[in-house]
Amino acid sequence: METRYRAALINSLGGFKSVVLLGTANAAGQTNLAIFSSFFHLGANPALCGIIIRPDVAPRHTLNNILETKSYTINHINAGIYRQAHQTSARYGGDESEFDQTGLTPFFVPGIHAPFVQQSHIQLACEFLQRTDITLNGTILMIGKIVYINLPENAIGADGFIDIESAGTVTCSGLDSYHTTRRLSRLSYAKPGVLPKDI
Amino acid sequence: METRYRAALINSLGGFKSVVLLGTANAAGQTNLAIFSSFFHLGANPALCGIIIRPDVAPRHTLNNILETKSYTINHINAGIYRQAHQTSARYGGDESEFDQTGLTPFFVPGIHAPFVQQSHIQLACEFLQRTDITLNGTILMIGKIVYINLPENAIGADGFIDIESAGTVTCSGLDSYHTTRRLSRLSYAKPGVLPKDI
Repeated sequence: METRYRAALINSLGGFKSVVLLGTANAAGQTNLAIFSSFFHLGANPALCGIIIRPDVAPRHTLNNILETKSYTINHINAGIYRQAHQTSARYGGDESEFDQTGLTPFFVPGIHAPFVQQSHIQLACEFLQRTDITLNGTILMIGKIVYINLPENAIGADGFIDIESAGTVTCSGLDSYHTTRRLSRLSYAKPGVLPKDI
Repeated sequence: METRYRAALINSLGGFKSVVLLGTANAAGQTNLAIFSSFFHLGANPALCGIIIRPDVAPRHTLNNILETKSYTINHINAGIYRQAHQTSARYGGDESEFDQTGLTPFFVPGIHAPFVQQSHIQLACEFLQRTDITLNGTILMIGKIVYINLPENAIGADGFIDIESAGTVTCSGLDSYHTTRRLSRLSYAKPGVLPKDI
């Protein structure tokens, strides 16, 4: 298979993905913003998340900044900014911030080195914990601990569930397809012999 | 935070997820089917994918079967089977197949040990390659190579993109919320100084 055809095909097979903007800054404060579709939940206690970095295709600014400062932010993408978010994947030079180039606005929170994206509705900050090199293909699994959460108050349910659909979070498929969602339902905890109910 | 509240909250922060049914069988042919929301694309060449297994909460049948036979299938979930898919997370005993318990239909492909789900529209088979234990929280990253693909012919575009939305694939958020999708657009490959176009 031709390389781009193969990349599009295999990537699509993974299903819908979490797509986020990952914000970092180097020690000197130069900001960087990059779109990632490989962010995933790893555990609730401690609150861990993972991200896969591909050093061969993406510029290394994100990786270097995380290793240098241990700090990064995860910003959910909504329909109002998905074009700007996609545009952060263009190969800008190390002295150009994707914030300036795409019109997204950085903001800072005391005690957190990395920049957040103002236009994002759900924002996290992570502290880098562990790097695992995937020797099979040269990718890197970066694991971090969630240390800060900012989200719309009315998006949190009584049971802790965050309604990311109502907060406008989008999903993606393949390399370049962006989607809003429509809830089918939430289902009750599954038990043998009882069909799950809508909750 | 209370444990379940915390689990729901932190899990929701990960964004929309790929949710799939993972089919396995032990060496004796006893089938197992389990829902996973941690399946992710890892690379196109070789075609690699990862899945996170939590041995503390899920029964170990899936893990044991993969280690024993190296074979597993990944079956996309659609709106017609999301309730049955969710129900596979109930704690059935080792002598009960989730296929029998939920009404999903297994089928087999010559040369592949693990069962597929007939009602799924996009089906993959994987060969297990590598286990990585995440010592930070006791989860396990299982990496496999995609060795078989079955999908609707009209879902593949000329550029290799698979329209999983048209194939009915759903996404999930948190522990129990299922969603269909609606495409905003596909965007052209990003280049500095040029805004991405719809493709």
